[in-house]
Amino acid sequence: MSTGFASEVLGRFVAESRWDDIAPVLRQEAKRSILNNLGCGLGVAKDPAVTTALAVMRNFSGAPVATVIGQGVKLDPMAASFVNAIACNLLDYDDTHLQTVIHPTAPVAPALLALAEQRGFPGAAVLHAFLLGGEVECRIGNAVSPGHYARGWHITSTCGTFGAAAGCAKLLGLSAEQTAHAIGIAASQAAGLVENLPTAAKNVGVGNAPRNGILAALLAEQGYKAAPASIEGPLGFARATGDAPDLAQITEGLGARWEIARNTYKPYPAGIVFHAVIDAALALREELSAAPDSIASVTVAGDALLLARGDRVVNNERDARVSIHHGAALGLVRGRAGVADFEMPAVTDPALAAFRAKVAAKLDESLPRGAARVTLRLADGREFQRTVLHPRGSFERPMSDAELEGKFRDNAAIGGFHARADAGIAALSGLDGAPDVTRLMASLA
Amino acid sequence: MSTGFASEVLGRFVAESRWDDIAPVLRQEAKRSILNNLGCGLGVAKDPAVTTALAVMRNFSGAPVATVIGQGVKLDPMAASFVNAIACNLLDYDDTHLQTVIHPTAPVAPALLALAEQRGFPGAAVLHAFLLGGEVECRIGNAVSPGHYARGWHITSTCGTFGAAAGCAKLLGLSAEQTAHAIGIAASQAAGLVENLPTAAKNVGVGNAPRNGILAALLAEQGYKAAPASIEGPLGFARATGDAPDLAQITEGLGARWEIARNTYKPYPAGIVFHAVIDAALALREELSAAPDSIASVTVAGDALLLARGDRVVNNERDARVSIHHGAALGLVRGRAGVADFEMPAVTDPALAAFRAKVAAKLDESLPRGAARVTLRLADGREFQRTVLHPRGSFERPMSDAELEGKFRDNAAIGGFHARADAGIAALSGLDGAPDVTRLMASLA
Repeated sequence: MSTGFASEVLGRFVAESRWDDIAPVLRQEAKRSILNNLGCGLGVAKDPAVTTALAVMRNFSGAPVATVIGQGVKLDPMAASFVNAIACNLLDYDDTHLQTVIHPTAPVAPALLALAEQRGFPGAAVLHAFLLGGEVECRIGNAVSPGHYARGWHITSTCGTFGAAAGCAKLLGLSAEQTAHAIGIAASQAAGLVENLPTAAKNVGVGNAPRNGILAALLAEQGYKAAPASIEGPLGFARATGDAPDLAQITEGLGARWEIARNTYKPYPAGIVFHAVIDAALALREELSAAPDSIASVTVAGDALLLARGDRVVNNERDARVSIHHGAALGLVRGRAGVADFEMPAVTDPALAAFRAKVAAKLDESLPRGAARVTLRLADGREFQRTVLHPRGSFERPMSDAELEGKFRDNAAIGGFHARADAGIAALSGLDGAPDVTRLMASLA
Repeated sequence: MSTGFASEVLGRFVAESRWDDIAPVLRQEAKRSILNNLGCGLGVAKDPAVTTALAVMRNFSGAPVATVIGQGVKLDPMAASFVNAIACNLLDYDDTHLQTVIHPTAPVAPALLALAEQRGFPGAAVLHAFLLGGEVECRIGNAVSPGHYARGWHITSTCGTFGAAAGCAKLLGLSAEQTAHAIGIAASQAAGLVENLPTAAKNVGVGNAPRNGILAALLAEQGYKAAPASIEGPLGFARATGDAPDLAQITEGLGARWEIARNTYKPYPAGIVFHAVIDAALALREELSAAPDSIASVTVAGDALLLARGDRVVNNERDARVSIHHGAALGLVRGRAGVADFEMPAVTDPALAAFRAKVAAKLDESLPRGAARVTLRLADGREFQRTVLHPRGSFERPMSDAELEGKFRDNAAIGGFHARADAGIAALSGLDGAPDVTRLMASLA
């Protein structure tokens, strides 16, 4: 299993994997990932970034066989998955593979659901292909991290293309060799830049991942080939986009240890390193029931990354999602941190703005990545402190199934699809026994 | 004109350019580039690499409004330009911008012709947009060369995406700001690896350039934005794919000195550094009329690049196109080097195989890049020598309009379209006065 070119090893792994050998906990994680992801898509169905992508792509679509989430229309699988991936990842409220900061599901699941809807593949095949595609995506991501992202590559878009190609190859029943070529063809399509992340150009990279992953698998099915060393060769993907890959990260324990099982889900639509800030603030509010006016000042301590990203003036929604000040203010003033709490009315809310000004950031290098310590001083001089090492939704403190269902319902309600949320949850829950994805996709239409 | 972010400077240049200000020599070069390119597409219309791309893409196409060259079908502009770019660049027999080794026309012209066919844009608008798109493509290519290709980036695919986006932006009449965003959105889609060049995966990168360039322009038209420093920023295109860009190469003399006017066309479907070998061998054959049997040995001298790429055993068509031995043999044995002379019957022709064994390669560092010296020794001991510094088709010795028309006819005949070659030449010749591209595209259908 572990010898040969990277794309060959992965091709064999994907082609030879059997659903019967997939442990129940993994099957459940696949459902959790997809539930979390689809909810994010429903929540932003009316966002102009999504409707614009749809408006452009609907003129470049073949037979309308694949559901565009929350839009009441279908497109061909490439076009539908382009729009759906953009929606599901739009707010970065979806899932995170922490070692790589890949959002694993958005590039992969939309491709598989669209292809399955077109061709009538059963639900279990989709879950199986998702786990395999996600595994390929995260393992290639591990092999090129951290140099890849540091050089400017939006790793969700780039490695997502591999994941979509590998997952589609499985769904199409390609041979090990064809799957290796699909992965190699993906290498010539992987793109997306960190520089563009604050703009809509980010969406194009994310949307292209499933769109081009489908194309890679279909071309490989028809005989298109790629170079054997497309990933690790001297002029291949890994070196072109960063450093020489650590190939052991691709092959070691493949099929025994699953990277996709290390997926995490966000309870708050904020940058993931800010979740500990919000958690600590929420806990202090619950503990003290202190009125905002009674709080004189707040100090948030964290590592260098937290400060580098989060010590900023908040002028817009994007700032709010990566602000120490806004996160602490939401926890202490509003006692919640949902989607609406990061939108413009919250950004310009005078109570939140005034409270943000009371919050100071402080470096504490003794705190690990992702942790935060919130200290508040009341007007009467008393101080209270809460340290969160592992926030809700972290790998160490995962969201429960019930919490994920609650998040799905919340997102559905935000998008105006509250009435259909239970149908979506039920369809996904039964997906491994479903003859096809019709019921699930109908609940999202 | 020359201050601001790179995408802004280019956006203003493209949006503000007026056809009336374009010199006749440039207009003619646009026609020469497109004639040369379309002929290459006609020649390979029956190649499985092309028909496979069509077979996959026809299931993912909207309304069939854009001609697929030599296939008798139309697809939507994205799908048609994907197939057409693959065809026009398949054998690398198309054009070359020597400073960057970009094939400038294949990623740009198919996008423009498809969009023009869909929307009824006039011929002059296509020629104008081609010059502007090609200029953006070559100037960004200059700015990232040589580090970009050396790192593994197939520069035709990557920079071609920018060229297609900029050209489509012009055709659509986008503002300077929208054009800058289209260029920035292209940055998040630019992909294609040198490692994959010996395989069909190369085609996918080339085909994606116009397909994604169209998408970039249409999304920018609808309001999608990109980061201002998408090209030169610390996490932008240039640094992610190589070194810091030499921004002066983008802006210096923009609109006064045209990089696209430095385009060159190949008389032989071989790697461009082998053209001097073929020319020298052809000249010696003409001079001596020596029968192959009377030639005892041949020595080909050239620089390190020629030897590194061309001193090889010839097992297949790809080897033949980059072989010192095959090039010399064609010149001296067959007295020609057309498309058929690099196909499998020529590879396995016993006369050519025997002659290739008589050819030795020798390093001569005094010879410049692209030059060659061929020395032949007859069986009777006499020696003859010919040195070619600038082969036919080089910038210093360009192919004439008549030679380009002859190449177009040859290519059309190879593809089985001999009867329509004159109609295509006439339509392209009159393109600047044509109300639309209907006549041209009908001649290629």
